[in-house]
Amino acid sequence: MKQDFADWRKAVQVDMEALLQSHLPPAELLPRTLHEAMQYAVLDGGKRVRPLLVFAAGEVFDAPRDAVERAACAVEMIHAYSLVHDDLPCMDDDDLRRGKPTVHKKYDEATALLVGDALQSQAFEVLAGGTLDASRKVAMLTRLAQASGSRGMCGGQAIDLASVGIALPRDQLEQMHRLKTGALLEASVMLGAMAGKSLLNDEAAALHAYSASIGLAFQVVDDILDTTADSATLGKTAGKDAASSKPTYVSMLGLNESLALAEKLRQDAHEALDIFGDRALRLGELADLIVQRTT
Amino acid sequence: MKQDFADWRKAVQVDMEALLQSHLPPAELLPRTLHEAMQYAVLDGGKRVRPLLVFAAGEVFDAPRDAVERAACAVEMIHAYSLVHDDLPCMDDDDLRRGKPTVHKKYDEATALLVGDALQSQAFEVLAGGTLDASRKVAMLTRLAQASGSRGMCGGQAIDLASVGIALPRDQLEQMHRLKTGALLEASVMLGAMAGKSLLNDEAAALHAYSASIGLAFQVVDDILDTTADSATLGKTAGKDAASSKPTYVSMLGLNESLALAEKLRQDAHEALDIFGDRALRLGELADLIVQRTT
Repeated sequence: MKQDFADWRKAVQVDMEALLQSHLPPAELLPRTLHEAMQYAVLDGGKRVRPLLVFAAGEVFDAPRDAVERAACAVEMIHAYSLVHDDLPCMDDDDLRRGKPTVHKKYDEATALLVGDALQSQAFEVLAGGTLDASRKVAMLTRLAQASGSRGMCGGQAIDLASVGIALPRDQLEQMHRLKTGALLEASVMLGAMAGKSLLNDEAAALHAYSASIGLAFQVVDDILDTTADSATLGKTAGKDAASSKPTYVSMLGLNESLALAEKLRQDAHEALDIFGDRALRLGELADLIVQRTT
Repeated sequence: MKQDFADWRKAVQVDMEALLQSHLPPAELLPRTLHEAMQYAVLDGGKRVRPLLVFAAGEVFDAPRDAVERAACAVEMIHAYSLVHDDLPCMDDDDLRRGKPTVHKKYDEATALLVGDALQSQAFEVLAGGTLDASRKVAMLTRLAQASGSRGMCGGQAIDLASVGIALPRDQLEQMHRLKTGALLEASVMLGAMAGKSLLNDEAAALHAYSASIGLAFQVVDDILDTTADSATLGKTAGKDAASSKPTYVSMLGLNESLALAEKLRQDAHEALDIFGDRALRLGELADLIVQRTT
């Protein structure tokens, strides 16, 4: 009898807290403020969506536990660094993240800058460690670097920045989200899978289709929640995108059509998983979670 | 007959310009401003000290050319990203770098932040590429990540930040420089060597001793030049450390003793290279260059 999804999810989240702590430099190591702030940025918060995707994709191919754990920590560190930098005054200028003061509010801007920089290095160091075959590691490191850089997450943020106050056409908006959020979500799925085996073309294509659907769904639902939820529930400032006149799915399609799009993408994600059968149960459940979440 | 040092150095610097360009995303690729700004941050400037060290260390062990080139580009991208972030208003707040406006002056702060972030990813991507044996690559990637992160360059910057206006004792000042500048200089030497072979203990120890000497010498000479040279010669704001009451070797030891220390470190560097014989000619010449440079 397979573990209930809620229990599995909770177990991964609890495990991740200990794993992230063990893969970060200890807070008592010099320079202490930097190491303490790195832990502040990463630990005790977040839905751990990307690690859940890594674990779920790892299950499809029976990936070794240590490799999955390292990949999960690496993508979460990249994600955490991007949030720290994204919250800085020169970017989104946010005071609240995961219900706590942002890193530059709790510490200062210079520390927040270095926390992000050092977390990125740490992510690659963690992924390069462990006992997995070296050629597999190199493929995973390449994938993570591509997803993080100027043709991935950073590139998406650059397009996002340039688009404030501009009504981006829908194709360009989707391109922006595909890079800003989608690239790292897809890398999470791929890294979990690659920890298990070298992917065949049809396997890679199926995981790409799944990732594209949940990546876009993630953003559509983010936009919906930004409209419908309050800051206390979200743990970050709600209504921010509308206030800064950033283009969103809700502003573009309206609320009802956005909800319908999210549901369509959820179904697409499930269809993409068909070739894996029962082994992809958790990936399917995560597609449901991403669309049906309330925070 | 071995090529003259000045010619060799010039050839590496010229090659690096083309290599860096080929290992950066093209400026016409979307997002254009980000890619253009990445090129602005990396190309057309800099003494390329770290790439020179990679090439020189590669010569000691007959490392394959492509692997040396990739390592040289990777360390230079990490160095360039650190300068971009270091120049930001929340850090050193500098307007001038390599004789040109700093990235956040030429573009804006958000772009400079993303340029640095994306250059770090790019460095790991470049180092993960090429045809070198995968286990060698993983060792090199690990080394670069360690040298860049919180127990390397970023850690040194954190200590530096925390020390402004405080008269650090000499051992702590050296620890700061060992991380802030020394870690990446040492990684440059090690990556060049590791591109050639897996190092024996005595080889690694000799290169470590060499790197420690030139790393410290580099900082001592930086402090001397900050006192004695002008901004036009340096291509960055001179006298800045003294103005911000950051501790320097000159403020601590005086000018003459700083000059003597630099010369002593140059000799130490040469001694460390003894076990390699003539193969380490370029590394020795680079130690001379680092101490005798005027910019």
